[in-house]
Amino acid sequence: MTKQVDLLLTNAHILTMDEDLTQYEQGALAVKGDSIIAVGPQDEITAEYSATETIDCDGKVLMPGLVNAHTHVPMTLLRGLADDLRLDVWLMGYMLPVEREFVSPDFVRLGASIACAEFIRSGVTTFNDMYYYEADVAQATTDAGLRAICGQTILKFPSPDSASYDEALDYARQYISDWKDHPLIVPSIAPHAAYTSTPELLQTCAQIATEYDVPLHIHVSETASEVEDMRQENDMPVVPYIKKQSLFDAKVIAAHCVHIDTGEIHTLHHHGAGVAHNPSSNLKLASGIAPVSKMLDVGLNVGIGTDGPASNNDLDMFEEIRLAAFIAKLATDDPTSLPAAQAVLMATRMGAQALHIDHLTGSLEVGKRADLILVNLKTLHNSPSFRRDPNSTYAQLVYAGKSTDVTDVMVNGQWLLRDHALLTVEVDELLEEAADYATRIDHFLIEREQSVLSKLIGVGGAMEQESFEVQIKVRIDDPEPIIESIHKPDLEILYQRHYREFDTYFVFEDEDQGYVRHREDEMLDIDGEIDNVRYRLTLVGDHREHQFSSDVLLSRSRWLAPAVHSLRFYREYFKPDQEIAIQKDRQRWLVKYQGTEFYVNIDTLEQPDLGHFLEVKSRTWSLRDAERKSEMIAELVTFLGASPTEVVTADYVELAAPAKA
Amino acid sequence: MTKQVDLLLTNAHILTMDEDLTQYEQGALAVKGDSIIAVGPQDEITAEYSATETIDCDGKVLMPGLVNAHTHVPMTLLRGLADDLRLDVWLMGYMLPVEREFVSPDFVRLGASIACAEFIRSGVTTFNDMYYYEADVAQATTDAGLRAICGQTILKFPSPDSASYDEALDYARQYISDWKDHPLIVPSIAPHAAYTSTPELLQTCAQIATEYDVPLHIHVSETASEVEDMRQENDMPVVPYIKKQSLFDAKVIAAHCVHIDTGEIHTLHHHGAGVAHNPSSNLKLASGIAPVSKMLDVGLNVGIGTDGPASNNDLDMFEEIRLAAFIAKLATDDPTSLPAAQAVLMATRMGAQALHIDHLTGSLEVGKRADLILVNLKTLHNSPSFRRDPNSTYAQLVYAGKSTDVTDVMVNGQWLLRDHALLTVEVDELLEEAADYATRIDHFLIEREQSVLSKLIGVGGAMEQESFEVQIKVRIDDPEPIIESIHKPDLEILYQRHYREFDTYFVFEDEDQGYVRHREDEMLDIDGEIDNVRYRLTLVGDHREHQFSSDVLLSRSRWLAPAVHSLRFYREYFKPDQEIAIQKDRQRWLVKYQGTEFYVNIDTLEQPDLGHFLEVKSRTWSLRDAERKSEMIAELVTFLGASPTEVVTADYVELAAPAKA
Repeated sequence: MTKQVDLLLTNAHILTMDEDLTQYEQGALAVKGDSIIAVGPQDEITAEYSATETIDCDGKVLMPGLVNAHTHVPMTLLRGLADDLRLDVWLMGYMLPVEREFVSPDFVRLGASIACAEFIRSGVTTFNDMYYYEADVAQATTDAGLRAICGQTILKFPSPDSASYDEALDYARQYISDWKDHPLIVPSIAPHAAYTSTPELLQTCAQIATEYDVPLHIHVSETASEVEDMRQENDMPVVPYIKKQSLFDAKVIAAHCVHIDTGEIHTLHHHGAGVAHNPSSNLKLASGIAPVSKMLDVGLNVGIGTDGPASNNDLDMFEEIRLAAFIAKLATDDPTSLPAAQAVLMATRMGAQALHIDHLTGSLEVGKRADLILVNLKTLHNSPSFRRDPNSTYAQLVYAGKSTDVTDVMVNGQWLLRDHALLTVEVDELLEEAADYATRIDHFLIEREQSVLSKLIGVGGAMEQESFEVQIKVRIDDPEPIIESIHKPDLEILYQRHYREFDTYFVFEDEDQGYVRHREDEMLDIDGEIDNVRYRLTLVGDHREHQFSSDVLLSRSRWLAPAVHSLRFYREYFKPDQEIAIQKDRQRWLVKYQGTEFYVNIDTLEQPDLGHFLEVKSRTWSLRDAERKSEMIAELVTFLGASPTEVVTADYVELAAPAKA
Repeated sequence: MTKQVDLLLTNAHILTMDEDLTQYEQGALAVKGDSIIAVGPQDEITAEYSATETIDCDGKVLMPGLVNAHTHVPMTLLRGLADDLRLDVWLMGYMLPVEREFVSPDFVRLGASIACAEFIRSGVTTFNDMYYYEADVAQATTDAGLRAICGQTILKFPSPDSASYDEALDYARQYISDWKDHPLIVPSIAPHAAYTSTPELLQTCAQIATEYDVPLHIHVSETASEVEDMRQENDMPVVPYIKKQSLFDAKVIAAHCVHIDTGEIHTLHHHGAGVAHNPSSNLKLASGIAPVSKMLDVGLNVGIGTDGPASNNDLDMFEEIRLAAFIAKLATDDPTSLPAAQAVLMATRMGAQALHIDHLTGSLEVGKRADLILVNLKTLHNSPSFRRDPNSTYAQLVYAGKSTDVTDVMVNGQWLLRDHALLTVEVDELLEEAADYATRIDHFLIEREQSVLSKLIGVGGAMEQESFEVQIKVRIDDPEPIIESIHKPDLEILYQRHYREFDTYFVFEDEDQGYVRHREDEMLDIDGEIDNVRYRLTLVGDHREHQFSSDVLLSRSRWLAPAVHSLRFYREYFKPDQEIAIQKDRQRWLVKYQGTEFYVNIDTLEQPDLGHFLEVKSRTWSLRDAERKSEMIAELVTFLGASPTEVVTADYVELAAPAKA
């Protein structure tokens, strides 16, 4: 007697993508509920099973659905917003400001829904996401019927969904516990990258990931400069650094890994981390080529991802698979590198392994969920078909196939696409809403592009300072006793500098624009001779983010650019309404006080003659930390012998131009 | 009164790709006969013209048809035949043998027709081809209604359509004069590459191209080893070498140019040559990345091509355009390199300039032929659309667009595609014929893969020797008088060598398999001491290609591989039915006799003891040349004092094993 199943797929060329890469040229597959019950030669399967429904696949390729190992799905709404730009200009001039302004639960749901439709059309059944309001991404994904790992982004600075990282961590805990046992969603935590995290932030994320047993998704060594910075600051590349923060206690998914060395590859492998390789994005942003062939040699699980659709600009895994094969050949100077079957494997079973969910999906094997697609390889651009070599079908998929050859998609036993028709997403409505967002974003940017900030970015090389600072400024009569106090044994002096600073402030009638400061720093040696000069532009916005007791200010990040042109050039370029010049002498120390680092400045304002000031500052990354440091700063000011009653909350430029202040 | 035209296309977002990259967001275009009569803002055009037919383009992008700057269209029939292989194995193990066996006028017509259908579907209106039986390619192209430059391949060795290059040149002349004034076809001559040509062959091709005023299409510096070989043999890279052969008297289209230097870029620019850049093929075969950004900086016209569909494996120009933009960013480490608008330009007007036919096509300008396409950018994967930046539409086409977004195609005023439907090609029939070829080719290769040759290839590094040789072998009693004659002033000795050679022949029962010879050469210094040793494998087929008077033989090319394994390994690997060992002493001279180079060998067969032989050989490339040299060889043998009556036409292995011979 035959066993009863829900569905039989017959007359298919089956690529199982199992351990032996078994193919059945005339195969059949049985589905019951959400799972694969049997797969094999058609005559055997049809002899053993009878089904409620039997579908003749007409000789199409039946294979596991594709696994997109790294993306940011809501960014479909920012696709094509700005292209062919430097990464910093693209990110800080366009993506971040637009995200700050527009990202909301509604934005995220809409963008994710469009992405889901695009995924279904092109044969993706599982994706690994990282964005904000990730609970809304998860909801949109389950509405569309797709499988996903949805990672809540954690940043050390404020983000669209969290004013501080404490808030983001609280959100993440709640979100993960809410979604933990969903049949389609694996929630995860996603500290954005080492360079946008603090050590404590990374450690806490690893704790949360292990506590809930969910993956931890992070960008690793995407650009050469990220690695350079890490080496300069921490004397090691990125992988050892995150290892030091106990990240590998968790199931890590490391996106990009473009600039990692052999030692780091072994570290990732030793700790069972997965890698997500993103060919289009790494090419488009000129990040480089990840050493994928070496990773595979070592035995790392490497998946393939599209990255976000704002840096790709689509979600087409067929393209990524082909590119993965192409650029591996280029990188190794060897056309036999990363052959077609391997590329398909990376986009299916190995991708699922890299995401730590290969018990659920990635191959057509008994017991796994029914995540599968049908691909028509009898189209014009796929013809003819050679059958001599078992690799031919993989080669067709990789080198000639298109995502539009996907005709049918099933996830978790549910059809999402039948004969090219979407069954779970209404695209037309979504695209209308998206068009509306695009119009509003265009308007926002058109206005903004008339702003001082955009001009600063336009002139090139602007960088948003990533720090928040707590700071206090106190008027003092005589620097000498303060300097003596700095040298007391309670303080450890880490370094000392002496500058003469010539500041020119460009002031604008629209106060929201902030000031642009052109600074010329003469660094003085021990004899007061000029040792070095540097020129910088800074955009100073409203810098009072928060005020603590004792008038300690929390100041927000600023935009900084090297000033490579003359002051005259910048005057003509920014067209300020007013100009204020300040000349000061600055002695600066980096000191350690009760285990915490502080900058201490003693400033003498020479032009205009405004007297002496003591400034104490420290970098901070969260409100709790800022609170603690603000108390220490007040203590330190007293320790140095200055009077907290002489606190000045105005900027020097405001003191120099009282009419404006 | 309005002027009458045949067709008005209205409500289109027009990308003219003219000198100023003029766009009309709400534009219209007028066609009369085969040409564009007007293009501009819709209200102006519709006010000035009335038409027999008006088509509302529904806001789609209307742009020039894409120009594929380098391809081999009949190779659609070999698409996916063999992938992920080394270039030499791919070319010599698969492509060349299959082409020798299968390429015919029918093969060429079928493959070209399939390519034309694929081109029309994906928005290509013009392509630049290089293959055999090019008159049949031209016929298939005009049947489909496409525009093409069809280049007849010329090789120094026999090709599928010519037994020698003299024949190929005769064919080319006839073909060019037959097709010279066709409205859709520009015939051209295509010496395959410098390394597959002789100087005389290149010079003759340049003469034919200038005589008929047609383009000359050639592969240039595709691989690093091609350039290395050229430098070793001629002390210069490829571009100066072809310049020396007067190639730039003609309108040159140089395909690939992956490994050219700045000087060569300037040379190409100075001579008005066009370059065809082939991203997919160069990646897939690991050839490298052409220095396209540098070429563009210098002002070279660079088009984009798919190369043949056997090394791509499709004919999708949308993919090539995107890849051109991507890999330029990678190569220059700069994401602003080759922005989207530039990439589209290379695939349209600049591509037409590179092919020397920009007076006909490449942009939507008054007076040019109506070669145009409609592209739907309102699809899911292209949404949303930003309008702030005029580059957005180019970015959509390049980074998110797919060839399947092309809905309509017109060439020379004739519709070839309407709403995705092909009007001039019946695809189903063609694909059936193609499937039949694929089956036959599979069978041919399955048989062949059991052969000794395929084993030689399988063991790695086998190279087909590209030479034909004319040769004579004469039995001599005493080498001394011959050696004295060699030193007579009538001969110039270019070099002299002394070897001891240990040959092991593997003989097979199936004589068609030929012999495999394992040779160990001990090169001896002046004192008879071993100076150097080399090991080689050679597959010797039936080597009597032709016999001239005086028993001079023309021998065909052989397969050569370095022998990196032990003799024991090869014995087990090839499993010969018989083994014959020969040991000989060889003195070899390269001499110049009456201005022509000859190799003179004096061989003493020591094991078995067969006595002394004089061999005189010379390389040749055409039958006429072979005839001339065979006469000189007979003369030279007499001059050296040997007797032509002692001529031996058997191989040493045949002499050593008379039973076999």
